[in-house]
Amino acid sequence: MNVGYEFDADTSLERVGERRFRGEIPDRWGVVGGAPNGGYLMTVAVRAMRAADTPPDPLSATAHYVKACRPGPVTVEVEPVRSGSRHTTAMARVIQQDAERLRVLATFGDLTAAAGPSAVTGTPPDLPSRAECVTVPPDMEQASGAANGAAQSVPPIVERFDLHLTPRSAGWAVGDPSGEAHMDAWLRFADGRPADTLSLAVFADALPPTALNVVDRVQWVPTIELTVHARGRPAPGWLRAVATTRFLMDGYMEEDVEIWDDDDRLVAQGRQLALLLRES
Amino acid sequence: MNVGYEFDADTSLERVGERRFRGEIPDRWGVVGGAPNGGYLMTVAVRAMRAADTPPDPLSATAHYVKACRPGPVTVEVEPVRSGSRHTTAMARVIQQDAERLRVLATFGDLTAAAGPSAVTGTPPDLPSRAECVTVPPDMEQASGAANGAAQSVPPIVERFDLHLTPRSAGWAVGDPSGEAHMDAWLRFADGRPADTLSLAVFADALPPTALNVVDRVQWVPTIELTVHARGRPAPGWLRAVATTRFLMDGYMEEDVEIWDDDDRLVAQGRQLALLLRES
Repeated sequence: MNVGYEFDADTSLERVGERRFRGEIPDRWGVVGGAPNGGYLMTVAVRAMRAADTPPDPLSATAHYVKACRPGPVTVEVEPVRSGSRHTTAMARVIQQDAERLRVLATFGDLTAAAGPSAVTGTPPDLPSRAECVTVPPDMEQASGAANGAAQSVPPIVERFDLHLTPRSAGWAVGDPSGEAHMDAWLRFADGRPADTLSLAVFADALPPTALNVVDRVQWVPTIELTVHARGRPAPGWLRAVATTRFLMDGYMEEDVEIWDDDDRLVAQGRQLALLLRES
Repeated sequence: MNVGYEFDADTSLERVGERRFRGEIPDRWGVVGGAPNGGYLMTVAVRAMRAADTPPDPLSATAHYVKACRPGPVTVEVEPVRSGSRHTTAMARVIQQDAERLRVLATFGDLTAAAGPSAVTGTPPDLPSRAECVTVPPDMEQASGAANGAAQSVPPIVERFDLHLTPRSAGWAVGDPSGEAHMDAWLRFADGRPADTLSLAVFADALPPTALNVVDRVQWVPTIELTVHARGRPAPGWLRAVATTRFLMDGYMEEDVEIWDDDDRLVAQGRQLALLLRES
């Protein structure tokens, strides 16, 4: 991809050793509180792995987030696990100021070489048109003033996307939470960068936390672990993301996400385990 | 747990270095083809990690299976990632004959210390009574002779469980596949060992592959990656497991599983990415 795009520039790394890379995390992928988005951080690690000549598609990538990252310099250490005829597996450590921040394990393959039976029962989401949705920003900034200014300030990552939340999903922002731990939206990169399997992890972690529609005084929902399966190469155009939580139990919650492309094909599935922290 | 139980004996390890363990994989956890079950292998790695004094519950564990294991000696190397106030993360390599077989990443916590809001919309599975279900074995052995003897021989792992497949799930074994990529069953360890959060990964990978009900000539469904979230400590008694695949695409499939305990509480969620291989 063209480094003129934000996503490519902001995940670019300089090789400083055989399996060691250095980069700079800008503040523009920050979520509420300023920590960079987890899907974005996973992608930084996956991009370092791909520099070791893996197949192109991260079929499955898992990150465990062990300490909050901050904008600034970052080091990524890659460890090859195994290269087979079909799949290649690698591991990466993402380090800031001598402390590991996340550990990533990923298996790569080539989705265009996949050959085998298909049987799909999942159906693409039937979302309201983008004109009926709530854009973020600017609608959300106005809305947040009306509702809960302290908790709802718009974080920088929001500007990385054209994000159109369905009215039902956006209820929390105007003091009318839907009561369902569900978020869905149209989205794409704001600067026009096409989605690919490398960037699917960012889209899989791009929606506001589902919990905002069921729990008040949400402070932060730190991800413990995020797994993203790239299942298809996205067609050009808009993506749709659907995120659901069915089991918020004693503060721990899963968040399941599906990403669908403009051809009505599922292109990614993600699941994260997160911890819900509330303002006291 | 008492080492008189098969599961505890068969996951026991001898410490042979600060972070190095040795064990012996018996043939009784073998699936079709003889390779040990993936959930069982994950547990061997997780048990090695726990020897380093982690909190008790593997909240999230991910294994990437890079080369088939065989029964026989095994070495597990553990690498601590980070210990925080609430969670501890570790990594393990499982090695046979100098070749890595799986790489595991896990975060541990203490579910009894969890405190936070709850909101659950997932509902426990409404399965037919065990008397209405198909036991495996011996029903299945008889059934397999009638249907497709070659592909349906009963692997040793089946005898590790009391497994009662719902009639709909068991259709493939009697030449009447349901047409839905779905399996559900009552299950528990055959020798009476109570389930705990350590063993949930085995239960999460214990059902026959969902694909058997939608695709013929299934040879093997090797797991590429398996993630299991332990969400609760199981109550004594029977478990119910429900596995579903919604996206089998060009041979790649996810398998989502939920494990419920006798108190109607979800105790684990699992998802794997697998590759469907057919007989030629």
